[in-house]
Amino acid sequence: MNQIPNFLLERVRLTPNRIAIATDGEEITFKDLHNRVINLAYKFHHLGIKDGSHVSVLMNNSIEFIEVVYALHYIGATSILLNIRLSDDEIVYQLENSDSEFLIVAKSNTVKIPENIKLLNINEIENSKSKEFPIKSNFDGDKIATMMYTSGTTGFPKAVLQTYFNHWSSAIASVLNLGLDHKDVWLVCLPMFHVGGLSTVYKSAIYGMKIVLTNKADAHTIKDCVKKHNVTILSVVTKVLNDILTIVEGTNELNNVRAALLGGGPAPLPLLQKARALNVPVYQTYGMTETCSQIATLSPEYMLSKIGSAGKALFGCTLEIRDDQRTCLPKEVGEIVVKGPNVSKGYYKLTKLTDSSEYLYTGDLGYVDEDGFLFVVDRRSDLIISGGENIYPAEIESVLLSHPDIIEAGVTGKEDPNWGKVPVGFVVSKSSNPPSQEELIEFCRDKIAGYKIPKEIFYVDNLPRNATNKLVRRELLKLL
Amino acid sequence: MNQIPNFLLERVRLTPNRIAIATDGEEITFKDLHNRVINLAYKFHHLGIKDGSHVSVLMNNSIEFIEVVYALHYIGATSILLNIRLSDDEIVYQLENSDSEFLIVAKSNTVKIPENIKLLNINEIENSKSKEFPIKSNFDGDKIATMMYTSGTTGFPKAVLQTYFNHWSSAIASVLNLGLDHKDVWLVCLPMFHVGGLSTVYKSAIYGMKIVLTNKADAHTIKDCVKKHNVTILSVVTKVLNDILTIVEGTNELNNVRAALLGGGPAPLPLLQKARALNVPVYQTYGMTETCSQIATLSPEYMLSKIGSAGKALFGCTLEIRDDQRTCLPKEVGEIVVKGPNVSKGYYKLTKLTDSSEYLYTGDLGYVDEDGFLFVVDRRSDLIISGGENIYPAEIESVLLSHPDIIEAGVTGKEDPNWGKVPVGFVVSKSSNPPSQEELIEFCRDKIAGYKIPKEIFYVDNLPRNATNKLVRRELLKLL
Repeated sequence: MNQIPNFLLERVRLTPNRIAIATDGEEITFKDLHNRVINLAYKFHHLGIKDGSHVSVLMNNSIEFIEVVYALHYIGATSILLNIRLSDDEIVYQLENSDSEFLIVAKSNTVKIPENIKLLNINEIENSKSKEFPIKSNFDGDKIATMMYTSGTTGFPKAVLQTYFNHWSSAIASVLNLGLDHKDVWLVCLPMFHVGGLSTVYKSAIYGMKIVLTNKADAHTIKDCVKKHNVTILSVVTKVLNDILTIVEGTNELNNVRAALLGGGPAPLPLLQKARALNVPVYQTYGMTETCSQIATLSPEYMLSKIGSAGKALFGCTLEIRDDQRTCLPKEVGEIVVKGPNVSKGYYKLTKLTDSSEYLYTGDLGYVDEDGFLFVVDRRSDLIISGGENIYPAEIESVLLSHPDIIEAGVTGKEDPNWGKVPVGFVVSKSSNPPSQEELIEFCRDKIAGYKIPKEIFYVDNLPRNATNKLVRRELLKLL
Repeated sequence: MNQIPNFLLERVRLTPNRIAIATDGEEITFKDLHNRVINLAYKFHHLGIKDGSHVSVLMNNSIEFIEVVYALHYIGATSILLNIRLSDDEIVYQLENSDSEFLIVAKSNTVKIPENIKLLNINEIENSKSKEFPIKSNFDGDKIATMMYTSGTTGFPKAVLQTYFNHWSSAIASVLNLGLDHKDVWLVCLPMFHVGGLSTVYKSAIYGMKIVLTNKADAHTIKDCVKKHNVTILSVVTKVLNDILTIVEGTNELNNVRAALLGGGPAPLPLLQKARALNVPVYQTYGMTETCSQIATLSPEYMLSKIGSAGKALFGCTLEIRDDQRTCLPKEVGEIVVKGPNVSKGYYKLTKLTDSSEYLYTGDLGYVDEDGFLFVVDRRSDLIISGGENIYPAEIESVLLSHPDIIEAGVTGKEDPNWGKVPVGFVVSKSSNPPSQEELIEFCRDKIAGYKIPKEIFYVDNLPRNATNKLVRRELLKLL
């Protein structure tokens, strides 16, 4: 059996009094965190959560969120981490699809959840009774620790299975790339219901490292956090990093930062030059929910010589470019396929994710240069990354198509100064009196999260299609 | 199957141009090392070494030694690393006991080896033909990478089996404790045929870290290496660290050193105070061949508050004190038992090393305090550590007992200003005209390595024995 140390318990044994998490108002040691987790786990157990239970969690970044996740790990339950920005319909779909028996929330919730699912508000279970159980010193590596929903080419959300071994391997591969200093403090401003945030929570325990949690990802909040907590590492998206670099220009406020991990698309040259001038090493990364955080990273020694590259696959991981089954030549664009101990084995209740030799076909397009550096050309299925959230056009198109007057729909991303990209829709109507743009947007409202709703919707006569009549989304903007 | 990345191949993919190894006269990148390894491996293969071959290696620390070890790994052969200070008899015993088909040496050797074993001098195979084979990108984690001989309570040398997974896990547990900086340079002055030296060679590839090799471990050589190569981490024994601290007193020559790993017994307070004054963080460690390097380490934050402690078991490892099967209370002395992914599964051709729950009984005595810190009270079977080498009294006693005039023998360690301890013997003779001390020492000469030969041998009437007539070695010195 593939045994992985119980991250938090092991850390408490080693350095109980180090600070584990800091928020705006609170700091907590590993030992105190563990004690709170035990307390909560016993209550959860009394309330019916067992080894193997499926438990959805709908919470904002907070110490309580981390307590909930570890309490479920201690029990042996699988956590399904839901995006707090989902619409009610989406939440219900994910609760049912994941066979959740419980939904844990932190504030009174208006979501009408199916009757067979128990709602637990962690602020209302303080007086609950407890039921003890033996805490295991190891996690079974092959067990599903967490599930996170993602939409693929079909526009149909699927739960990515993430094992303890996946999360452990991700943390190990990262430390061999990024190094580790006993003074390290990692700022988590990415949501913990995304793997970029959650993986840092695990790193905290595995590395014995303080993390700083915030729910706000604006440049001023981050700058203040960096200063207040002596942050040395931060994970950010391009826009936010650019904003921070702008407001600290001419100061030494980022002197302590030894790594800025940049996800969600290639960084533009001016940003990298600005970072270089301020002596902030930028690590461009490539990863996804299915790889449990980064799988490729560009070392800062190549920050300017390999501009636009996401680097090489981490130690122990493999990355190839394939065209169908054939491995592409250097500089030849093909599908990015990856393999590694951090790669998910599949989607819940769906077919295996990887091929017979354990390769994951990401659906993303890219190439490697002669030196083996990855360049991502296009994210899978015309993925739109908006403010760090992934938006899958097919998912929004299927909502638009569910309107009785709409017969064709295409969605793509449009540049936006605040969000990087925002979704815009193109529709064909069969009606002589089609709904207005406002009516269509309103129609989407309850069905999908706010950030997924097209900011603009245009009526057109035809959508661009290729020879096999497949929608060519990258041609959509030319219709304007 | 438990797959481990091929350490060196993976490192070459990531950072081919970083310096891997520096010696007094040479520096070599990971890429160049790999190329040399391939070249050598093809020759070895042509000369008959195959996947699964048992190959003994008798070499001094050198780049060539590292090439040989990796070439054997690339082929899939098991390396048996022999101590260069062994006597001819000991070498022949280990060659035969390990079923070695080959012996690799670097200089013309006068050892008369059994006829069925092929002798390869790596300086004489330059013109050998090559036979190519496919280099695997992974090692099978459960496969035996290396074997090293150690003597236990029986005085009978046994080969410790070390898998790729053991070595990998050791490097990972260490990085989570010690951290990793891209400027790290680790000085290896311990012999590579011991696990303390070899483990650092693997760390070099896994971490992408430069190591500095030397065969001399005197304070002046080490001090010069530290300066010349900007060494940041060094593994040393107490005496050597003390010597170095003495010669650099009042200078800033060790300013760059961020960790001095200290093995082989607890460090005395004055040494630790001297280190503190010079701002050299000392990590006291506990480990053995069977744990593939350290299994417990004291963090420098506890350097002075837990004087004499070897710290806590590394992340993912477990350490307990037992008296028979019972777990001892804090401060109660018992046998140290350990468990972890770095712990060897057994000795070659002998019974399993660990118990049914994978615990290794080390034979060493110790206790843990209320905070869980280990204190080693006595090394197993009255182990004598002399200049960093392990000497097992029972092994020397059996040599003395093989003399026709000697009917009882006891060996123990005596304090020595240069070596820490040196072995001294106590014998009982049945003869009215027993051999002189010099004759007895001469008698040992060909049978055991020079460092194991007792520096003094005393005739006594009786040896101290306990109620069950077992020799009580720690009482021997009282006979003087």
